[in-house]
Amino acid sequence: MKNYKFTVAYDGSRFHGFEKQPNVEMTIQGKLESVLSIMTDSKVEVIGAGRTDAGVHARAMICNAHLETDKSENEIRDYMNHYLPDDICICEVKEASDRFHARYKATGKTYVYTCYIGDIKPIFNRKYVYVLNRKPDINKMQEAAKYLIGSHDFKSFCGNPKMKKSTVREIDKIEIVSKGSYLTLSFHGTGFLQNMVRILTGTLLEVGWGKKNVEDIPDIIEAKDRQAAGFTAPAIGLCLMKVDYN
Amino acid sequence: MKNYKFTVAYDGSRFHGFEKQPNVEMTIQGKLESVLSIMTDSKVEVIGAGRTDAGVHARAMICNAHLETDKSENEIRDYMNHYLPDDICICEVKEASDRFHARYKATGKTYVYTCYIGDIKPIFNRKYVYVLNRKPDINKMQEAAKYLIGSHDFKSFCGNPKMKKSTVREIDKIEIVSKGSYLTLSFHGTGFLQNMVRILTGTLLEVGWGKKNVEDIPDIIEAKDRQAAGFTAPAIGLCLMKVDYN
Repeated sequence: MKNYKFTVAYDGSRFHGFEKQPNVEMTIQGKLESVLSIMTDSKVEVIGAGRTDAGVHARAMICNAHLETDKSENEIRDYMNHYLPDDICICEVKEASDRFHARYKATGKTYVYTCYIGDIKPIFNRKYVYVLNRKPDINKMQEAAKYLIGSHDFKSFCGNPKMKKSTVREIDKIEIVSKGSYLTLSFHGTGFLQNMVRILTGTLLEVGWGKKNVEDIPDIIEAKDRQAAGFTAPAIGLCLMKVDYN
Repeated sequence: MKNYKFTVAYDGSRFHGFEKQPNVEMTIQGKLESVLSIMTDSKVEVIGAGRTDAGVHARAMICNAHLETDKSENEIRDYMNHYLPDDICICEVKEASDRFHARYKATGKTYVYTCYIGDIKPIFNRKYVYVLNRKPDINKMQEAAKYLIGSHDFKSFCGNPKMKKSTVREIDKIEIVSKGSYLTLSFHGTGFLQNMVRILTGTLLEVGWGKKNVEDIPDIIEAKDRQAAGFTAPAIGLCLMKVDYN
C-alpha cells in the first residue's frame, strides 16, 4: 500500500460539504472514496485537510489515501477525473511518505471570500460570489481586521455551539482588496473553526456597513460568545485556496 | 412610447436560445418580454440583434423595445434585473432614437468561441468552455482561417438546410489565440448564418487535428454543401461578445 497526496478542486454548490455523512450521497469525501474504492476494489478512506461546509468551494483541497494499485500517479488522476462528476477535479496525484496525513500535517490554510458589489448582476460567476446590496467601507474593514491578527480565542467566531476542544487559533494575515466590482477577503492562519471564516467575513462586513464599530472587535473577541459577532456570510462566496505543509 | 436599447448578458445553459417559440418557456426573448410586459402592463415586443442558439451565451446582446413607462433608464434596468432569473442580466438601458432597430441597424458582430485543453477538468467555468481531448495545431488553424476572411458564400457553413435567402456573408477578422489551457477563436463579421460560428470553429479544429488540410478550405467554401465542412462545435463554448452600430 502506498500513500498518495491529492490536490482537489471542487465547485461546492451541489454538495453537502466535504465530510461524508450517513445517508448523504453528495459529499466530496464520499465521491472520492467511492471512485477510489471501485478503482482499487477495496474500501478506501480519504483524509481531507479540513471539512469545508456545504456550498463552500475549493481550488486546492489536499487529501491523502493509502491505495493498493499498479496505476501511475497520472493514471490515478485521469481515472478519477473520468469517473468523478464535472464539479470535482483531481488536479494532481503524488506519492507521499507513509507518514503524510492531510489533516494532522497541515500547518496553515488560505481561504478567500469573494463579494460582488455592482449595479448589475454577475452572470458567469454567480455561483462563486456573495452579492452585496450595499458597498461597505473598505478602510474600516481593514482597520477592524488588524484586531483579529494574532493568536486569540475565537469562540465568538465559532459556528459550533457544542465545541468542546480549544477554540484558540492564530491568524497571521487578512487582506481585504477591492478591485472593480469585486471585494475579496483573504485569510491565512494555522487553522479555522467551523464557519469561522464566514463569521469573520460577516463581522467585518457589518463594520464596513457601520452596523458595528472598528473598536468593537476586541470586545467581540473578549465576549467568547457567538452572539457578539456578526452574521455568517453565505457559503457561496468562500473558497479554500491553499493548504500548507512543512 | 419611447424606444429603449438594452445591453443584455446571459448564461445560455438553461435556455432554448434567444428567440421565443410557441410552448417553450425558457427563451431569452420570452423572459425579457414577459418582465417588460408586466412592468408596463401592456404587450411588449423585444427585438434582438440576432438569434443565439440554445446553450449559447452572450456578454452583450443588444435588444430594443418600445415602452410606455415613467421609469428612468436605471429604474428599468433595476426592475428587470430584480425580476429576471439569475442567469440573465440587463447591463444597461439607454433611450434610443425612434428609428433604432437592434437587428436591422447592426453593422457587425463579435463572437468568441472558447476551448479548453488541459490535463485536468475546468471546474469553475465548465459551463462556458468546450473541453478538447486533443491539442490542435494552432498554426494550421490560423493558416486555414485566412481563407475564410472576406466576402464568401458560406452555404457550407450554414446549419439551416432550408435557408432560402442569400448565404453570402463577410468575415473581416478571425483571431485564434492559445493562452495557458485555453484556446479562443474570435470572429468578427457583418453577420453570421445559423450555426455558422460553431461550424467554422468545428472545421478549423478539424484542420488543427489533421482531419482536414489547410488547403481544403477554399474547396469547402466552393462546395456550398454543409457536408463538406467540419462538425458543429457545441454551443457551450460560444459567446456573443459585441454588436456594432454606426
